[in-house]
Amino acid sequence: MPQTHRQITLAARPIGYPKVSDFQLISAPIPAPKAGEILVRTIYLSVDPYQRGRMRDAPSYARPAQIGEVLVGGVVGQVIATKGTEFREGDIVQGNLGWQEYALSDGSGLRKIDPTRAPISTALGVLGMPGMTAYFGLLEIGKPKSGETVVVSGAAGAVGSLVGQIAKNKGCRVVGIAGSDYKIDYVTNELGFDAAFNYKTVSNYSEKLKEMCPGGIDVYFDNVGGPITDAVFLNLNVKGRIAICGQISQYNLEKPEFGPRLLWQLIVKRARVEGFLVSEFADRYEEGLRQMAEWLKTGKVKYRETIVEGIENTPMAFIGMLKGENIGKQLVKISEL
Amino acid sequence: MPQTHRQITLAARPIGYPKVSDFQLISAPIPAPKAGEILVRTIYLSVDPYQRGRMRDAPSYARPAQIGEVLVGGVVGQVIATKGTEFREGDIVQGNLGWQEYALSDGSGLRKIDPTRAPISTALGVLGMPGMTAYFGLLEIGKPKSGETVVVSGAAGAVGSLVGQIAKNKGCRVVGIAGSDYKIDYVTNELGFDAAFNYKTVSNYSEKLKEMCPGGIDVYFDNVGGPITDAVFLNLNVKGRIAICGQISQYNLEKPEFGPRLLWQLIVKRARVEGFLVSEFADRYEEGLRQMAEWLKTGKVKYRETIVEGIENTPMAFIGMLKGENIGKQLVKISEL
Repeated sequence: MPQTHRQITLAARPIGYPKVSDFQLISAPIPAPKAGEILVRTIYLSVDPYQRGRMRDAPSYARPAQIGEVLVGGVVGQVIATKGTEFREGDIVQGNLGWQEYALSDGSGLRKIDPTRAPISTALGVLGMPGMTAYFGLLEIGKPKSGETVVVSGAAGAVGSLVGQIAKNKGCRVVGIAGSDYKIDYVTNELGFDAAFNYKTVSNYSEKLKEMCPGGIDVYFDNVGGPITDAVFLNLNVKGRIAICGQISQYNLEKPEFGPRLLWQLIVKRARVEGFLVSEFADRYEEGLRQMAEWLKTGKVKYRETIVEGIENTPMAFIGMLKGENIGKQLVKISEL
Repeated sequence: MPQTHRQITLAARPIGYPKVSDFQLISAPIPAPKAGEILVRTIYLSVDPYQRGRMRDAPSYARPAQIGEVLVGGVVGQVIATKGTEFREGDIVQGNLGWQEYALSDGSGLRKIDPTRAPISTALGVLGMPGMTAYFGLLEIGKPKSGETVVVSGAAGAVGSLVGQIAKNKGCRVVGIAGSDYKIDYVTNELGFDAAFNYKTVSNYSEKLKEMCPGGIDVYFDNVGGPITDAVFLNLNVKGRIAICGQISQYNLEKPEFGPRLLWQLIVKRARVEGFLVSEFADRYEEGLRQMAEWLKTGKVKYRETIVEGIENTPMAFIGMLKGENIGKQLVKISEL
């Protein structure tokens, strides 16, 4: 085993889109577990949109990252040493162990992964936080009913691609919005969405939504915010519901963006807009994971991963994900199982 | 009885704030009831913010007013002739009979008012549509719990003044926002709001709300929209709720207004924004009216009316109401009981 490992810290608070120079790759001794601790070797790191918010020095639902600190992030790894814990060497675990090659943990917040159930990387995707976000966000906040029209933005991403498939499994008509023709082909021809459009080649989103949703929009799962969400407001049905999962179009702006005031639409439509965090549903993850695993097994949910290799490429993968360069879940592979 | 009566029609679609010249006072024969109809003499006309929306030629929850048509509006009046209906001459009724001195009706949508229960004008206010809007909008959409902080804008108006008192009756801390020092004095010293501020003399609404709501905002009953609502978004508590009743700051704009995009706040706060129309609760009005009448009787709800006289002054009263010149319910008195 090596003596040192590599970590990625926040070097500077990003302004606009993060740059590779906002991050620093450092070397540190691999720590030894004390009583009640385990040492985990990272296999996969997850890069997710929420991490952009943590890089901002503003009060939010979680403490902001500090300059010089190892960045927070989801990890799947293997227990390589344990001192009097419930874990055993060789166990595969998932937890928020950060952007580093090795991590100490007292086991809190870790879950053991059964590597025979599905590829272990899925513990960061369809059978992990993005999967639970799609499942509970759509079903508990969006509350789609069979026959309704569901629109999802970020449709080819880790969460959006699952949202659309869950909605299809619930008998809905699904329209996706994504940022490339390749993604549109993927969600319609591979994932079975009823329709989708590439917002980068459409000028009037509202007209396009009207065309693709002739019966109006009952549920919108919002990953992006901005002008796409404006267009949905204008096409909502009476008693429509908007589940606000993310607003990625807003996360990398140097100055706050202004948009048309559209809350009056909510009166006319008696509609609801609700934000959520997946952690609200933590006590129901088992139910969600069971259902997603069953759909996976029966082919009623498919997933893709975009994987880069090497911890040094994590900032690049993170920035690419923010720009929509990935299809499905963006991961960084750090070591072999 | 006279042969003719006066009506007010829409002469032109208002651009920005309506002008008196957007309306026309016309004379028409008083119609005679046919079988199944009654003739009602108007006693009070109601002017309400929602009527501004009807003057716009845009699809909404109700058909827009047409040029040359008598304007829609709530009325309390007296039955002066009936041809084989359940009504009797002398009955006091309330219904959407329009801006006119007399109206025919087949009785649909009319309710009989008991003039011994409360002054008949209250059937257009605290014991009518504004009362039900406050009652169901606050309790069913805002869902305040005892000890929570409720903020209401348009606090001295027909709906807002009731919202604050209902919230107080439910054990909430209530902060009002209104547009004159006189209104602030009224809601705090006469209606018992815990605090209030005059938005016309405050430059930073968010700072003011932070000061007046040190524990954050749990429920916001929104009558106004615009920058005041922006400031509430920034001070919402986790699991906060915004009931969108009206957006009066937006109704008289010549061009749509832009504002900061704040939906991301709903994620951070896991908060809900929901629009409603009072008509959704029509099957529960009896419950709401019973409770409001009891609170009236026991002094736990107070109300005020601003009354102008003469149908010819209806446009002026309507425009004044849109500009916030009234305290409590704005009415036009058309004839004596």
